[in-house]
Amino acid sequence: MGRVTTRTPVTRIALTEAGGAVRRRADTVAVEEPLEIRIAGEPFTVTMRTPGHDLELAAGLLLSEGVIASGGDVRAAIHCGGPGTTTPTAAVPAPAPAPLRMLGAPALASSPSATENTYNVLDVALAPGLDAKAHERARSFATTSACGVCGAASIEAIEKRSQYDVSADPVTVDAALLAALPDRLRAGQAAFDKTGGLHAAALFDVATGELLVLREDVGRHNAVDKVVGWAVLDGRLPLSGTVLQVSGRASFELVQKAVMAGIPVLSAVSAPSSLAVELAAQAGLTLAGFVRGASMNLYARSDRVTV
Amino acid sequence: MGRVTTRTPVTRIALTEAGGAVRRRADTVAVEEPLEIRIAGEPFTVTMRTPGHDLELAAGLLLSEGVIASGGDVRAAIHCGGPGTTTPTAAVPAPAPAPLRMLGAPALASSPSATENTYNVLDVALAPGLDAKAHERARSFATTSACGVCGAASIEAIEKRSQYDVSADPVTVDAALLAALPDRLRAGQAAFDKTGGLHAAALFDVATGELLVLREDVGRHNAVDKVVGWAVLDGRLPLSGTVLQVSGRASFELVQKAVMAGIPVLSAVSAPSSLAVELAAQAGLTLAGFVRGASMNLYARSDRVTV
Repeated sequence: MGRVTTRTPVTRIALTEAGGAVRRRADTVAVEEPLEIRIAGEPFTVTMRTPGHDLELAAGLLLSEGVIASGGDVRAAIHCGGPGTTTPTAAVPAPAPAPLRMLGAPALASSPSATENTYNVLDVALAPGLDAKAHERARSFATTSACGVCGAASIEAIEKRSQYDVSADPVTVDAALLAALPDRLRAGQAAFDKTGGLHAAALFDVATGELLVLREDVGRHNAVDKVVGWAVLDGRLPLSGTVLQVSGRASFELVQKAVMAGIPVLSAVSAPSSLAVELAAQAGLTLAGFVRGASMNLYARSDRVTV
Repeated sequence: MGRVTTRTPVTRIALTEAGGAVRRRADTVAVEEPLEIRIAGEPFTVTMRTPGHDLELAAGLLLSEGVIASGGDVRAAIHCGGPGTTTPTAAVPAPAPAPLRMLGAPALASSPSATENTYNVLDVALAPGLDAKAHERARSFATTSACGVCGAASIEAIEKRSQYDVSADPVTVDAALLAALPDRLRAGQAAFDKTGGLHAAALFDVATGELLVLREDVGRHNAVDKVVGWAVLDGRLPLSGTVLQVSGRASFELVQKAVMAGIPVLSAVSAPSSLAVELAAQAGLTLAGFVRGASMNLYARSDRVTV
């Protein structure tokens, strides 16, 4: 059963000039559990994630890796129970191109033990012809020679794989809207307030300012995969006219995920890396960093931001 | 050539009541580049890292994954040049069990272009019999069925793989020493000051309070691998009587790396995850989180901390 947070005993020490106060209490921590994603029964990858929205996570990851192109490519998904459970959670195949919904998926709820099986294996069925592509990608996850050569090769690989050209998105964003997004992201982070231990990603519509979806996870790449996967399964790609706001830093991987989903603007509360800046500049994605209070840095395609 | 930071043009916007100030300037960002680690010429893994200390990164990762047991298991390493360079950087084999030093390794220096090859392929030669073990691990990186089942299985896998029992380490740590480490870590972060974009990890000797080694990287797991790898190559394992201080959150993966290196105390500036707490409790590692100012939370083996 998916749990986002759990309680754990903690010893709290507060040092004072006279010595220190020690007290035992219960504290809330963010749940981290492995998720094994299988394609047609065969292992695809294992990621450490916060349970919940696992199908979105898988769909977002498969889109980012160039395995699927749309929600219609995901035909079915089964949340396998393991030793700790008795009945697998089943999903019925959805006729493409209708977006898939996982039936009988476990609701977010507390589970009695932190070590029992928590629906940590998700088996995904893809459209004909995509299984082989997925298994090829799985093999190259750990061993992509092309990407090992240099950053330029990594950038080329993404450009070759992406079906959208974000550089052509005519959207413009008011700087005041961008400046307001970190607070709106923070306001939507229910689990962070309790744990201080979760990354978040959210998608905003530039035209209306509306928050479309927000996801939290111990891994920032997972949070973004869940956001993108939500859009994939909802048939919303490409995500033209949107801003992806993330709670931490902007890495190459996050820019990759934005580009693959057709998102024209990525905004991070903290710093970008060199390769994130290079990929953004080459792909034509607007990259904002250090978006704090009333100020921000624009590292690529600053022409889209109006003051 | 390894570069830790690089300069990039940035558009800085500062909003005011009257509108906003826009100015162009150069900014410093943390370098992120792929590193492909090969074992005996065959791909082992690719990680996005900040260049520098690549051999330590590889050694730390191989130790964490249970492939090598000591520095003597690393016989040689060659930093391959790619299309952008002409001469490979060669390393001579070191006679085991003497710790290996990579000869002719590129010094940290500026490189003229951000996209040229930056020594991003490292080929490692291991002691006889370990190549097959490494390739087996490489295959299971993406596809560890055992770890996909549940957190408990992940914990069991680490316990089975570790050659040290950190629960038996008799070290005790003064809470005042722990409270002082985040500031000392921060003080040693030369590159963070310039970029705001690097994680850090450092090893401290509990008996003397001495800083043994500090490493920075865009990936926090890489920063810890570099610290552990430094100790591996210096013949210092197990790291009894030390504290590993990290700049961010404590994940399962970071606790795993500490346990595998025989480090008895892990201290994080931010929150731990549920699985980090569970693994620490089961392995007998002291886990501190939210170490800020004069206070801290202890999530496992709090008996080692004296007030």
